[in-house]
Amino acid sequence: MLRARGGEWWRGLRRCASLPRALRVREALRVPEPVERVKVQGWVRSVRSQKEVLFLHVNDGSSLESLQIVADPSLENRDLTFGSAVEVQGKLVKSPHKMQNMELKAETIRVVGPCNALLFPLKTRERHPLEYVRQFPHLRCRNNTLGSLLRIRSEATASIHSFFQDNGYVHIHTPIITSNDCEGAGELFQIGVSNEAKDSAEKTHFFNVPAFLTVSGQLHLEVMAGAFTHVFTFGPTFRAENSQSRRHLAEFYMVEAELSFTESLQDIMQVMEDLLKTVTSTVLSKCPRDVELFQKYIAPAQKGRLEQMLKNKFVTISYSEAMEILKQASQAFTFKPEWGCDLQTEHEKYLVEHCGEVPVFVINYPYDLKPFYMRDNEDGPQHTVAAVDLLVPGVGELCGGSLREERLPFLESRLQRLGLTDTYQWYLDLRKFGSVPHGGFGMGFERYLQYILGVDNIKDVIPFPRFSHSCLL
Amino acid sequence: MLRARGGEWWRGLRRCASLPRALRVREALRVPEPVERVKVQGWVRSVRSQKEVLFLHVNDGSSLESLQIVADPSLENRDLTFGSAVEVQGKLVKSPHKMQNMELKAETIRVVGPCNALLFPLKTRERHPLEYVRQFPHLRCRNNTLGSLLRIRSEATASIHSFFQDNGYVHIHTPIITSNDCEGAGELFQIGVSNEAKDSAEKTHFFNVPAFLTVSGQLHLEVMAGAFTHVFTFGPTFRAENSQSRRHLAEFYMVEAELSFTESLQDIMQVMEDLLKTVTSTVLSKCPRDVELFQKYIAPAQKGRLEQMLKNKFVTISYSEAMEILKQASQAFTFKPEWGCDLQTEHEKYLVEHCGEVPVFVINYPYDLKPFYMRDNEDGPQHTVAAVDLLVPGVGELCGGSLREERLPFLESRLQRLGLTDTYQWYLDLRKFGSVPHGGFGMGFERYLQYILGVDNIKDVIPFPRFSHSCLL
Repeated sequence: MLRARGGEWWRGLRRCASLPRALRVREALRVPEPVERVKVQGWVRSVRSQKEVLFLHVNDGSSLESLQIVADPSLENRDLTFGSAVEVQGKLVKSPHKMQNMELKAETIRVVGPCNALLFPLKTRERHPLEYVRQFPHLRCRNNTLGSLLRIRSEATASIHSFFQDNGYVHIHTPIITSNDCEGAGELFQIGVSNEAKDSAEKTHFFNVPAFLTVSGQLHLEVMAGAFTHVFTFGPTFRAENSQSRRHLAEFYMVEAELSFTESLQDIMQVMEDLLKTVTSTVLSKCPRDVELFQKYIAPAQKGRLEQMLKNKFVTISYSEAMEILKQASQAFTFKPEWGCDLQTEHEKYLVEHCGEVPVFVINYPYDLKPFYMRDNEDGPQHTVAAVDLLVPGVGELCGGSLREERLPFLESRLQRLGLTDTYQWYLDLRKFGSVPHGGFGMGFERYLQYILGVDNIKDVIPFPRFSHSCLL
Repeated sequence: MLRARGGEWWRGLRRCASLPRALRVREALRVPEPVERVKVQGWVRSVRSQKEVLFLHVNDGSSLESLQIVADPSLENRDLTFGSAVEVQGKLVKSPHKMQNMELKAETIRVVGPCNALLFPLKTRERHPLEYVRQFPHLRCRNNTLGSLLRIRSEATASIHSFFQDNGYVHIHTPIITSNDCEGAGELFQIGVSNEAKDSAEKTHFFNVPAFLTVSGQLHLEVMAGAFTHVFTFGPTFRAENSQSRRHLAEFYMVEAELSFTESLQDIMQVMEDLLKTVTSTVLSKCPRDVELFQKYIAPAQKGRLEQMLKNKFVTISYSEAMEILKQASQAFTFKPEWGCDLQTEHEKYLVEHCGEVPVFVINYPYDLKPFYMRDNEDGPQHTVAAVDLLVPGVGELCGGSLREERLPFLESRLQRLGLTDTYQWYLDLRKFGSVPHGGFGMGFERYLQYILGVDNIKDVIPFPRFSHSCLL
């Protein structure tokens, strides 16, 4: 196992010389000095047999780089193919090649699990397109690109947890199954029990009420912000949208935070910007080779963009300013920009370009466009709420947030107009018993990964994509 | 915001004396020296008005302890009640009381959000039973016990992520919606789209196939263990069990890990034991006061049990030994212990007592009792598989794991007998292309919290409990 902490962990390797010590490939590549009696386990990435010497590359998923194995040709056997699982024992020595630090001089090679290379859909030394490997959801993680992606995803996940924990936020598991639908939107998955013998009335009433998969943890986070001041959640959310878009999934992950005693949208935006920059810096420093793969083969322009993003303050414009920019654009839009209408993807793209391909906060959206919980700016003649969207290059909307309406009378009259007063009695309670000014935001985690890596299709940044007409495995 | 890292963070407080500096209660209590011009925001926990002085206690969820505010009685007003939200400015000074380090001498007290103490279901200075606060899922987090619980839950969550990350595991978001049902069990939630206008045939076919909420991420983790060697997941899982038990929820969290190149059940058990001990030690050291609350008011015996657990190696017995112990018990069981039958809760409880109220691994269960993926021990005459359950005091089964059947012929013949060959073609593929010996386990996160804190009902260790006939909020 990899021990991430501690200094000279590798010195311990030399002590018990009788038992071979299992090393992860990542560890083996970093050992500074030769080590006797080492064992490495993984999958063969290449086999090259020469008259004098047999070369193998073995990868165990601990890093993008494989470990080179150097062996006597007599150790070769017919099961030693691309994709097979092997255990190699031998001596770890300095490599004469400058591209790698160490290599393993094999004494024994055991094929643990053979692999029929003809039937195996991944091929040796081939750079498969992402669309191709998407057909094999149970095998594609053994492709280099998906391997790097999932390591980056794992690091980003850890970094998001650390960011909030380090800043005093309490982590909350907001519920997946919920009896409210948050935004009154229609694109929900409903839950029933599966026993098909039961009649359909009983099916939907396991919980006595209709139950849905959550579209956001916000309202539940608001409950918790009434006790803990700073809270966050990071979990799956769902949309039953019949969409095949490269930016939408039926099941995706969202990072959401809620901050009490916050009277300014600027404070919320500062947390979004800090989060984005901190997590991105961490990923760049912890997975340099994995990120490099994307910058080399998937999205070469992304490298410069990320450097820009990390260095500069994000741009802020108001929705009204955004509309002015769009109206003055020479470009012809499919959807005519009009105050009071939602920003379309083409508009988001234009605004980001207009601002120099950097992240852009758009604030203060029309009152009538936004859900009931957003705080009334009480302005005029163009009535707005204190909402913010963060637009980023290549993706469009990455985050959305707002100040929440903390004033009971404002909320009551708005819910009454929408006929939602009964449904949200519990939410009104939050404004009756020690209400505080607060706000928060959500960030789509898959879109974040698309953004930093320049991955075009959202299906390629999640381990098991779910979308309309597809739920493989 | 709380800065967890860095040494003398509080010295910075004294610099810009013109603007009052917002401090979390937890920070304020730890400042070693007086600080001028401080601002604290939170909810009033008690008001005590004397002739000469007004005492308030303000809590903001950053710790169990509240900050004592000392003010001139002229600052009192009728909105200053239990539950109201306040902002207090003043000077942080050494407290004369030995129970607290610092107190805040108030210059101004602003009631941000009043609270009608008569209508507010939580009462000042009252220790409400957990069953009582369960009725108010949107307010119970402002109860001391739930507050401590959720802080502990948050720390345990962070510690679980760190444990795996530090040991080189890749974190995987296994899917929530799945088209397979893992164990062939019947207690599944099925997914449909909510638009009630659509006919029921279309409802179930958003994904073209019937789709369910996951009961375990194991099979998907096995996919990933074929590329990354060590993987883990930590997310929600679901059971449509019509149960009102104190140990079952319809939605609960599970920690699952899968380890490739593992030929011994001992290795899997070692990881379980390390995980349990590491996370528990972290919680004890990071939330001492929160844990103390449970040891004082909820489960006094728990303290000694945890110390025992941390100090000693867990006990291991085989299923067959367990049956012998149960058969020789003087106690009369409702379910007669018989080789080949599942362990019932009463049996688990007896075994844990028999072993001295410590965690007990039970290994090698009957072949016919366990799902298809568990590794055949090829023993006789009592045919077993390499499975393990971890039983703990007060809870019973906390973890379950096994070596997985990595041998294609064994798996093929078992799936064929069960008529599942077609469904699990993709799973058989994993054994065709570089199969490796591997195993893993799952731990119920809520049961873990019940165990370490001695909380009797599982509904009290999750922010928003979901169970049959109940889905509040």
